[in-house]
Amino acid sequence: MTTGVESVFAAISDPTRRAILDRLAHGPTRVTDVAAPFAMSLNAVSKHVKVLERAGLVRRARQGREHVLELDPEPLRAVAEWTSSLERYWNDRLDRLEAFFIKERSK
Amino acid sequence: MTTGVESVFAAISDPTRRAILDRLAHGPTRVTDVAAPFAMSLNAVSKHVKVLERAGLVRRARQGREHVLELDPEPLRAVAEWTSSLERYWNDRLDRLEAFFIKERSK
Repeated sequence: MTTGVESVFAAISDPTRRAILDRLAHGPTRVTDVAAPFAMSLNAVSKHVKVLERAGLVRRARQGREHVLELDPEPLRAVAEWTSSLERYWNDRLDRLEAFFIKERSK
Repeated sequence: MTTGVESVFAAISDPTRRAILDRLAHGPTRVTDVAAPFAMSLNAVSKHVKVLERAGLVRRARQGREHVLELDPEPLRAVAEWTSSLERYWNDRLDRLEAFFIKERSK
């Protein structure tokens, strides 16, 4: 089992799992309703849901006899921070390059 | 072969590939220097680099007899947009929930 940020990146690498998260972003949803749009068995969808639960992106609550799934987008923050750190480094590099050319031109 | 955003999510799901991108964020780097910190063969690292190239995150340039790798963080924008769209939906939900409670309390 992967842990922490690793399990989050692994969880969102799959298009079905991202689609499940998109669905849950609109509100808590019963497992059977989450599975409905997918051309796969309830069992296959449940396996994807378990991966999302282990990554901390989905919580499962019991409502009577139903299992209801709920999104927790908090772990995605680490993904957003990593992508923006790469962009930041990149922009810093471009800034230094620009400064270099301006300096060269003024010689 | 996966295409577009799919290949980007798949590319960044691996910790070695994310470490390669972190390294390249500091500037263009020779393939051999990219491989140096990893306890794996140059061939294994090259395979990871190819996955990053196919996802459009890394460009390869020839400098004399050397291959130099360069980061292109642009495809990561789709990842950042997806994570923030989920957070946005989530915050909208919390806002509606708050509005509901405020309304209930004022009854």
